[in-house]
Amino acid sequence: MSLAETYEAYIACLNARDLDELGRYVADGVIHNGRQLGLSGYREMLVGDYRDIPDLQFRIDFLVVDTSSVASRLHFDCHPKAEFLGVAVNGRHVVFHENVFYRFSAGKIEEVWSVIDKAALEAQLQSLRA
Amino acid sequence: MSLAETYEAYIACLNARDLDELGRYVADGVIHNGRQLGLSGYREMLVGDYRDIPDLQFRIDFLVVDTSSVASRLHFDCHPKAEFLGVAVNGRHVVFHENVFYRFSAGKIEEVWSVIDKAALEAQLQSLRA
Repeated sequence: MSLAETYEAYIACLNARDLDELGRYVADGVIHNGRQLGLSGYREMLVGDYRDIPDLQFRIDFLVVDTSSVASRLHFDCHPKAEFLGVAVNGRHVVFHENVFYRFSAGKIEEVWSVIDKAALEAQLQSLRA
Repeated sequence: MSLAETYEAYIACLNARDLDELGRYVADGVIHNGRQLGLSGYREMLVGDYRDIPDLQFRIDFLVVDTSSVASRLHFDCHPKAEFLGVAVNGRHVVFHENVFYRFSAGKIEEVWSVIDKAALEAQLQSLRA
């Protein structure tokens, strides 16, 4: 399986919310934005995301892959229930992106650097109010 | 020159503020976050960035390159003069990242999708106040 295929299988796993399979893609000592979450902390983070965004689905818009790293632009079209990234979304419909990098080792995600487009989210809710 | 080398030369051009050379790296019809800026609009955007952040320097922290695309995690360590991304930085020292994707064609940047880590910037200024 190529690294791109492995990554696509990881995203399918997230969309199926099949978190018992998460360890096939994510390393035991995984680091996320500088925090050593480990596999269990990473799983907890996802459980929190699913709780806060009941219709959360991950869609790959753009993908760059080399021998050991993946960079992915993810697209979200959803209704966060309450606050998200400190923004009071309160169930409104929002579309936003995440630009995220992954360093793989032995076929699993070892480290993640993620940035979600908070400014675009805010601009969108601003225009909804206008 | 490999695509990674071309990209590194582009970043060196930005750091040298040698905007007369920008057209070597950026296509005439360049699109930035969905806006068709063109080369002249792209140059204006950079002139604005240099004005707002006098000590702006681009540092590549992580790079993923395939045949026609580059994904780069850029690191900034600087003092924005006033407001930046709607945040009142007012000359304080901040460190933040940008996760950015580039689609190249014929050796030049045709399209850019950039996300700057506004949430991290805010958290940093929050802790400076605490």
